[in-house]
Amino acid sequence: MGERFDKGLAVRKQVLGEAPVAQRVSSAQGELNADLQQYLTEFAWGDIWSRRQLSLRDRSLATIAMLAAQNRPTELKTHIGGAINNGMTMEEVAEVFLHAAVYCGFPAAMTCMRLAREVAAAREGAPG
Amino acid sequence: MGERFDKGLAVRKQVLGEAPVAQRVSSAQGELNADLQQYLTEFAWGDIWSRRQLSLRDRSLATIAMLAAQNRPTELKTHIGGAINNGMTMEEVAEVFLHAAVYCGFPAAMTCMRLAREVAAAREGAPG
Amino acid sequence: MGERFDKGLAVRKQVLGEAPVAQRVSSAQGELNADLQQYLTEFAWGDIWSRRQLSLRDRSLATIAMLAAQNRPTELKTHIGGAINNGMTMEEVAEVFLHAAVYCGFPAAMTCMRLAREVAAAREGAPG
Amino acid sequence: MGERFDKGLAVRKQVLGEAPVAQRVSSAQGELNADLQQYLTEFAWGDIWSRRQLSLRDRSLATIAMLAAQNRPTELKTHIGGAINNGMTMEEVAEVFLHAAVYCGFPAAMTCMRLAREVAAAREGAPG
Amino acid sequence: MGERFDKGLAVRKQVLGEAPVAQRVSSAQGELNADLQQYLTEFAWGDIWSRRQLSLRDRSLATIAMLAAQNRPTELKTHIGGAINNGMTMEEVAEVFLHAAVYCGFPAAMTCMRLAREVAAAREGAPG
Amino acid sequence: MGERFDKGLAVRKQVLGEAPVAQRVSSAQGELNADLQQYLTEFAWGDIWSRRQLSLRDRSLATIAMLAAQNRPTELKTHIGGAINNGMTMEEVAEVFLHAAVYCGFPAAMTCMRLAREVAAAREGAPG
Repeated sequence: MGERFDKGLAVRKQVLGEAPVAQRVSSAQGELNADLQQYLTEFAWGDIWSRRQLSLRDRSLATIAMLAAQNRPTELKTHIGGAINNGMTMEEVAEVFLHAAVYCGFPAAMTCMRLAREVAAAREGAPG
Repeated sequence: MGERFDKGLAVRKQVLGEAPVAQRVSSAQGELNADLQQYLTEFAWGDIWSRRQLSLRDRSLATIAMLAAQNRPTELKTHIGGAINNGMTMEEVAEVFLHAAVYCGFPAAMTCMRLAREVAAAREGAPG
Repeated sequence: MGERFDKGLAVRKQVLGEAPVAQRVSSAQGELNADLQQYLTEFAWGDIWSRRQLSLRDRSLATIAMLAAQNRPTELKTHIGGAINNGMTMEEVAEVFLHAAVYCGFPAAMTCMRLAREVAAAREGAPG
Repeated sequence: MGERFDKGLAVRKQVLGEAPVAQRVSSAQGELNADLQQYLTEFAWGDIWSRRQLSLRDRSLATIAMLAAQNRPTELKTHIGGAINNGMTMEEVAEVFLHAAVYCGFPAAMTCMRLAREVAAAREGAPG
Repeated sequence: MGERFDKGLAVRKQVLGEAPVAQRVSSAQGELNADLQQYLTEFAWGDIWSRRQLSLRDRSLATIAMLAAQNRPTELKTHIGGAINNGMTMEEVAEVFLHAAVYCGFPAAMTCMRLAREVAAAREGAPG
Repeated sequence: MGERFDKGLAVRKQVLGEAPVAQRVSSAQGELNADLQQYLTEFAWGDIWSRRQLSLRDRSLATIAMLAAQNRPTELKTHIGGAINNGMTMEEVAEVFLHAAVYCGFPAAMTCMRLAREVAAAREGAPG
């Protein structure tokens, strides 16, 4: 679809995994959200995540911190996986959510910690 | 006031600067917010910021990301300064706010960028 | 119950459908939320939605935009249906959520788009 | 303007003070927000604040807690004054904001505490 | 684990019930959120909830008001139960959520009312 | 800078005015937020605002509704002006904020109404 899309799709797959990204992009074709998926890949991933001013690990850390503050569980679970792929340990991810108790309150921290446990359990249960 | 307070005060001064922290703590004595200042030092700084599971730079990055999402300008300006003290460059701080355009929307990103410029201008104008 | 209630109930049924509104109002009788349902009908629908300064389509557009920004999935699904009844196409509804990527961030846009697809699928599956 | 308006205006003046409420209502006449002021008096004060299921002090406590969580400084300052008029001490108001450190995070608590100090200072400086 | 933990655990059990608190604390051991549970008990319950400047009923009222404004359903259901244990009636809890229609909007009020009905139904169905 | 930038700059100037947009873009050069201004023009205006699936008036209506819900005063004032340029009357803008009383609460509605009055006063005071 063009250079920005291709560059964005490559970073998006690197961070979130080849299979789930391919599935989301293809299932969106002909659908209401096809254009949203395209802008997401081009702008969010092709323009912003591709910039070199922050490492991918720094971007993952900023992303899960922003999603923790905003109360967005589906996207947070996706990006917990992305943070692990970008070099954070699950203990560091959990530590970000503990840190959120100070800046967003304990309810936010506890919601995020539940999601982190679900992601950790799903990854342990997955075949090697 | 105890070990947690002392440890917290040390980290708080390391991150936010000796003079402004001393000023805030002392001006709070006998005031409505004296207890809040004490819990802030003991819990936020003595318990959480003092943990070694994340670097101080990582904690600053998480903090400004959470404050950007929450629309808290006064605290964000304080922690932009803290992020610089913890090893981030002003360009990296600005990049976090650019990243926020994707996850919190452009109005959040633009508000934060204005605050970053104010902090940058104040630091350039300060005596060496 | 009075003129404001009657006027509000009529607009509410026009926008959200006869059967679901009748069901919600009657099931609330004798319950904790009976008074809330009455105020909702009188104030939200009888006072505000009944005003002529904006068309019903404009009010639906404002409503789904506000609910998208606030992360309120149950009410958003109700009002996606209301927007269709007030003359928006499903493509226009989806376009509002694409627009939300700019002003509320991509996570908000993606959450809303999922809900729009659910409403669209439910309406297609419903008997004619 | 009717029974609900009169009842609401009486409660509103009881809680927020005779002079400031009279000023706000009269200055709104012929203005953009005249209708908003009317609905505020009729619905918020005439319908809801006038109900006897919670004491006025309980309603003030709930109001400042909700405004603390929402980051609405102008309305929060108005309702800190209302809480004092409804029987809370300034120390109890400050304690609600300390409590907010747990449920909304320290930045919310610190912002609210600053506003409480401003209201306390203004009241001390006012003629007896 | 120390005096703050013991004091906090006692208040936490008094408000939220012996069995559920014991279950949450023990199930967290060795897990990602063990430290979060400890800070929650020490700081939120041992430091803040244990203070005498507000009654337990006032703290419950402030807590459900803050959680209503923040859209945190899991924690809100927990604290609806706590509010009942601290002397609020279910009708008073529902009245707080009706009050939220004024300060947080009707969608917030309706979401909270649904949760209150679920808690009320669960308590009625529980063995005596 | 490319086709998307040029198209976006044209729409942005059409909606927000030639002079203020030129000023913002040029003052950002060589500054921290130069890249943010570029993405704003390319993505927000060149990609999204340029789409034909919603009229410019509909996009302005959605934008002020989203900003009202999010509590973003600076951007809201900018887009109140944009809404007028896109064919809304000031009375319709105020009606959107009255509508916000239902969906976001009265504090949000009152904050927005104050901003609308400021914009209206500034426009009346401006030379013809």
